[in-house]
Amino acid sequence: MENFTYFNPTRVEFGTGKEQLIGEILAARGIRKVLLCYGSERIKREGLFATVSGKLAEQGIAWVELGGIVSNPHISTVRKGVALARAQQVDAVLAVGGGSVLDSAKAIAAGVHYDGDVWELFLGKAAIASALPLFTILTLAATGSEMNGSAVVTNEDTQEKFFIAAPALFPQVSIVDPQLMRGVSRDYLVYSAADVIAHLIEAYFTASVHPKLLSRLVEALLNTVIETTEALLADPADYDARAEFAWAATLALNGLTFSGAAGFSYPNHAIEHALSALFNVPHGAGLSVVMPAWMKWYHSRNPAQFERFARQVFGVDSAEQGIAALEHWFDKIGTPTRLTQLQISAADLPAIAEKVQSNVRGFGIAELYTPAVVTDILNSAL
Amino acid sequence: MENFTYFNPTRVEFGTGKEQLIGEILAARGIRKVLLCYGSERIKREGLFATVSGKLAEQGIAWVELGGIVSNPHISTVRKGVALARAQQVDAVLAVGGGSVLDSAKAIAAGVHYDGDVWELFLGKAAIASALPLFTILTLAATGSEMNGSAVVTNEDTQEKFFIAAPALFPQVSIVDPQLMRGVSRDYLVYSAADVIAHLIEAYFTASVHPKLLSRLVEALLNTVIETTEALLADPADYDARAEFAWAATLALNGLTFSGAAGFSYPNHAIEHALSALFNVPHGAGLSVVMPAWMKWYHSRNPAQFERFARQVFGVDSAEQGIAALEHWFDKIGTPTRLTQLQISAADLPAIAEKVQSNVRGFGIAELYTPAVVTDILNSAL
Repeated sequence: MENFTYFNPTRVEFGTGKEQLIGEILAARGIRKVLLCYGSERIKREGLFATVSGKLAEQGIAWVELGGIVSNPHISTVRKGVALARAQQVDAVLAVGGGSVLDSAKAIAAGVHYDGDVWELFLGKAAIASALPLFTILTLAATGSEMNGSAVVTNEDTQEKFFIAAPALFPQVSIVDPQLMRGVSRDYLVYSAADVIAHLIEAYFTASVHPKLLSRLVEALLNTVIETTEALLADPADYDARAEFAWAATLALNGLTFSGAAGFSYPNHAIEHALSALFNVPHGAGLSVVMPAWMKWYHSRNPAQFERFARQVFGVDSAEQGIAALEHWFDKIGTPTRLTQLQISAADLPAIAEKVQSNVRGFGIAELYTPAVVTDILNSAL
Repeated sequence: MENFTYFNPTRVEFGTGKEQLIGEILAARGIRKVLLCYGSERIKREGLFATVSGKLAEQGIAWVELGGIVSNPHISTVRKGVALARAQQVDAVLAVGGGSVLDSAKAIAAGVHYDGDVWELFLGKAAIASALPLFTILTLAATGSEMNGSAVVTNEDTQEKFFIAAPALFPQVSIVDPQLMRGVSRDYLVYSAADVIAHLIEAYFTASVHPKLLSRLVEALLNTVIETTEALLADPADYDARAEFAWAATLALNGLTFSGAAGFSYPNHAIEHALSALFNVPHGAGLSVVMPAWMKWYHSRNPAQFERFARQVFGVDSAEQGIAALEHWFDKIGTPTRLTQLQISAADLPAIAEKVQSNVRGFGIAELYTPAVVTDILNSAL
């Protein structure tokens, strides 16, 4: 077991109606004005915006709106948010939405405290020493952003999809109300399942040090995601399934599943980030294509762990059968497993492979994931 | 799934040599003088005291010693600590030891900020609004006190063993170095295993709402504890086993395993607290006697979960077989399963049963655990 620091100061308020607390939560911390970040107008149609703004008003908290944050969120919107937060002198950022909204809000919170252009933080030109206090109300369970200190944003000019991470980016409070997620489309539910699974398997398969305790925790979460996704496809109103799915998604990327592991990397994310930076595919849809292809290429490097996965998650015996079972399960729930389903063809592979190279630079895996290897991996997913 | 708040602000520094950080950790938080709480002189013999005091001295941090804290720690020692902390105007409490030292330190930290007698906090006469900052270096993995906000202390005059819990009692930083635990005796290792198992099964078996995700997490931890205890009995120098055991013990009582559950109680702890208040038996040894007896009495109230336990933890089919397997495992590792092994006889049962009644008052389970029922349960453990 590797030495580690576990520190996760986010308070999670989980459950039905918890968004009603947002006014009190902010007021108790002395917040008088927030930048309210959101994505689509859905939160206005569905009444969440009215609830939130009503609770802010009750406490005399002012807000400035930044709407229109899209999936694979853009650095241009983040820059706009930084400018707005500064001009309006907000005390905090309140994100209401899914992972893209939360990640944009984190970038804005960091950008306000940084003198240069906020993209420089993604390029590692400066460390993030502090940020505006951040609060979130989650409407889509997938990315785990609600309980960690990292964020992924796309620079649409350079087609780079990079991340930032810092202790200052942990939300102070995150509200996770599964009821707010019942409007999530069937497509986004299955993409989210693929995203959570991807978070769970990267260290599980690639770590050079991976305590069995962590494998067991990961398998507990994998089995929960698989079971609750099926339950939700059968009955989107199944609150308990929605709640377990949401909490599993949070725990999948809050530090629990990799504290004590070492020598792991995120190749599936690296490849997918290239896909979505170039073709703007939904992150989870890209991941469900990449994962089985990557697993077929990688499994012989860690056969015991792939056999463990096969046994503990799908009740089958061999690594190959386990991978086939996951691919079959993705097909069954309706998330893509082929690049052609994403309108990506063999002719696009060289550009993707090049993009992966530039994405993984500095992560110590550039030597392994050469353009030839990435092309090889993706070829099996055509 | 029940609504919950998850909040655990303790920073855990886990791994070899982490105790070397203690000076920097305190200095970074502006601490100039600490009350240094410990138990036996073992930490002086084994060099840990020299390491810690050296690191404090390097940072110019003064300390006042409170040694001699015993298992099932006494409120009299806590009172002494409160007086000492006040007289010496310390800024923080530093606990170096196992659960008893940590719990005493928490009670002292709360007592310093309370005007009345500190035992009143255990009687619920006042809420714990604040406490001195608390830091810990763990030398025995068992109680989970290093990453939660609760503490159990015995009033030796009234023979009451009660607990306190408050957000202010979370340690700011806990150092968990498995190397510091290699001197733990064989007896205390197996008692610790029983204690961790008890923490894991109380809500697992008694909750009226218990999401399957939580059952899976609990089983991951149970299987880890069982496997690593056996590994450590075979080879006390097995660092990875020691580390996984320690981290499982921390996760067993840091909020993870019951967030989302509801309607659960701690009957095994209630019964054991009566045993150790009256007979001063080691907490884990008392628990390994109580658990199988309680399970035999209780299982028909929650048959599906007991069958699940049998299957997932011991690979057997029925509730009865699962309980027998646990009892057999306790026998195998050498932690008691009979009251007579604790020098407790049938004649003592009425007094124990009465003590349980007074302990559980206010916990909503006094009606269930009548003296007749407790006598019945313990009779099967004679």
